[in-house]
Amino acid sequence: RYCYEKNLAVTPQGGNTGLVGGSVPIFDEIILSTALMNRIISFDKVSGILVCQAGCILEKLNEYVEEQGFTMPLDLGAKGSCHIGGNVATNAGGLRLLRYGSLRGTVLGLEVVLADGSVLDCLTSLRKDNTGYDLKQLFIGSEGTLGVITAVSILCPQKPKAVNLAFLGCQSFPKVLETFRTCRAMLGEILSAFEFMDEKCMELVEKHLKLSNPVTGSPFYVLIETSGSNSTHDEEKLNGFLERVMTSGLVTDGTVATDDKKIKAKVLGLFGFLCSLVPQALWSLRERITEALTHDGCVYKYDISLPVGKLYDLVMDMGARLGQSAKNVVGYGHLGDGNLHLNITSESYSHSLLAAIEPFVYEWTARCHGSISAEHGLGFKKKQFIEYSKPREAVRLMQRFKAMLDPKGILNPYKTLP
Amino acid sequence: RYCYEKNLAVTPQGGNTGLVGGSVPIFDEIILSTALMNRIISFDKVSGILVCQAGCILEKLNEYVEEQGFTMPLDLGAKGSCHIGGNVATNAGGLRLLRYGSLRGTVLGLEVVLADGSVLDCLTSLRKDNTGYDLKQLFIGSEGTLGVITAVSILCPQKPKAVNLAFLGCQSFPKVLETFRTCRAMLGEILSAFEFMDEKCMELVEKHLKLSNPVTGSPFYVLIETSGSNSTHDEEKLNGFLERVMTSGLVTDGTVATDDKKIKAKVLGLFGFLCSLVPQALWSLRERITEALTHDGCVYKYDISLPVGKLYDLVMDMGARLGQSAKNVVGYGHLGDGNLHLNITSESYSHSLLAAIEPFVYEWTARCHGSISAEHGLGFKKKQFIEYSKPREAVRLMQRFKAMLDPKGILNPYKTLP
Repeated sequence: RYCYEKNLAVTPQGGNTGLVGGSVPIFDEIILSTALMNRIISFDKVSGILVCQAGCILEKLNEYVEEQGFTMPLDLGAKGSCHIGGNVATNAGGLRLLRYGSLRGTVLGLEVVLADGSVLDCLTSLRKDNTGYDLKQLFIGSEGTLGVITAVSILCPQKPKAVNLAFLGCQSFPKVLETFRTCRAMLGEILSAFEFMDEKCMELVEKHLKLSNPVTGSPFYVLIETSGSNSTHDEEKLNGFLERVMTSGLVTDGTVATDDKKIKAKVLGLFGFLCSLVPQALWSLRERITEALTHDGCVYKYDISLPVGKLYDLVMDMGARLGQSAKNVVGYGHLGDGNLHLNITSESYSHSLLAAIEPFVYEWTARCHGSISAEHGLGFKKKQFIEYSKPREAVRLMQRFKAMLDPKGILNPYKTLP
Repeated sequence: RYCYEKNLAVTPQGGNTGLVGGSVPIFDEIILSTALMNRIISFDKVSGILVCQAGCILEKLNEYVEEQGFTMPLDLGAKGSCHIGGNVATNAGGLRLLRYGSLRGTVLGLEVVLADGSVLDCLTSLRKDNTGYDLKQLFIGSEGTLGVITAVSILCPQKPKAVNLAFLGCQSFPKVLETFRTCRAMLGEILSAFEFMDEKCMELVEKHLKLSNPVTGSPFYVLIETSGSNSTHDEEKLNGFLERVMTSGLVTDGTVATDDKKIKAKVLGLFGFLCSLVPQALWSLRERITEALTHDGCVYKYDISLPVGKLYDLVMDMGARLGQSAKNVVGYGHLGDGNLHLNITSESYSHSLLAAIEPFVYEWTARCHGSISAEHGLGFKKKQFIEYSKPREAVRLMQRFKAMLDPKGILNPYKTLP
């Protein structure tokens, strides 16, 4: 309210882990940190509904609900520092979306401070509520430009009793796709993540972070997670799947990280050796790619949604286009959700390299009816490219919403919309 | 556009199966039927994404995607006549929400005609898209008051390979709740529905529709559905669950409808008799309660969200309050989602009976922080009660959205908002 009266601009900031500059002030905005708003308000053990303040750190929340037999419906690499309020404000996707769906389904309620300082209380804890328009949806993914999220009500699924990880090598991207189809059919309801990365990603993780890749010699790797309620059943499903993809030649090598002895025995028979890594170490190979890239030089980051069959074509086209002018062109991401993280590194920032990448990458994506931001948002860096993914009428309507909810333009200015 | 220029009001109408009068014109509105917009636009067999026009009938869509190995993420009693456009416009819940989540997560894109006749094309087919505000969410559940949905893009899950139904009798509502907790823990990821109904519901279904109840003598009944990818595993989970609830006395009697011979043998051992009903016949006992109620007289219908532990208290309080002035007071619904359908019948419409029910039912719900419309919407019948579930500031903001998107008030007037 004070800022509204004095015409002072505000940039809400949570863990400041975003990749498009959504939480970074541009000129002279006041940073409104949610760091001290870190209280858990309530948790219902029957329904699994958590209500907490916006500044709670995702990993802390996950630890808290796991003690009660539940798990957070989202998980991402930045979990150790990102805030739940920022997750909701950016509609974060992450590693569990394939299983538990987007925050648009799992967030049940929000408390939001509007531009004029008034509090909009939609912090209900109901699975279903069809009374009027669902106002909270407008604030999910609006990157703090329409209001500041101060509290969140979110539905947590039950903590799985058995979790297994398989890390597999494939000789081509079509084989990765076929492995995905087989996996969905055979693992069914226990599949909780299907991530892929190319061999350059693994080289960078080995080189810059000294992590060891337990499976080598493949151009593509996939990381598959199962989460289920019955370890014996999950083991049978996973073993059946592994046997199928190994004997059909879809997968040439692989390993499994699990506490389950029977799966270990099976893996020993199939792959001839056993992974010495614990599940978290195997996850690190995928989660720490971002970190490895920052050690490789200047990074140009793109977060693209595409029809799954075309996911890697963009990486190959970009690699061919840039040739020697880029240090590395790598692709990885959430294959199960059709979400590619395309990253390009160079020794130093180069305007000509950027000009070779953009708008080519956006035009390529628009031709395939993809999205130029699958889960990172638009923030400051991508806002001028919105029309590659949204028709002009939609952008105009968004601008009308912004003008209505923030007439003075004091909420996270210069972000999201052109 | 013609209607906008001539100031003519429009009421969009799909299958006209709503229960709150959302698709019924009030004064002299033009009915805009979606019945002829019944074309399937595309279906992607890899991702399971269906794009179709708004007038497609839900059951027809389900038959279509089942042929391709997928299933619609929603199912409800009116499936034979309701339109997908109406389902989205009312944010329909239904029988599979427990498993596949709400339409806010599964609807990926919409095409909407705005009040001025312009077309808003947000009909993308991407699992993830974070470019700007998610405009389509405003139209989901707005009951045609902000725009007319003309096409829908929706994510379909894989068709389960094994489906089993269990119909069980419980001696008290606390035992129903404990059965639910046990069920969630033991059936885990294969649980796809947990419905409950009281004995009066069953009496009405037997009396008016001549359906036979395979399990008798219990004050409460639950209908549990499992959907999974491996019939052997599902059978073991279901058998383990049935044995637990029978031996612990949570359930006194029951039966199972399945094609699986091993489950049949197990049921014979546990319950001493076998259900002669096919799964669809068992579902009819639950799905046709609405129909049975209409044969019982004048029906007062309430669709309430409550914390699950308090779900049946409202039915008992209402029964005690109304005494002999009501013919029947019954409760059933989607227990797994905390959603109660409270229905009261009388021989003829009575103003004094209505005055005894309302606003008592809304005040009771508001005291428990519940919702006065879980999945039916507000339409014409409930719009004046919105403030029992939403704070005044939220209602004012909704009215500002309405004024912005429909300045002449020609879209489904007199609905949703007071």
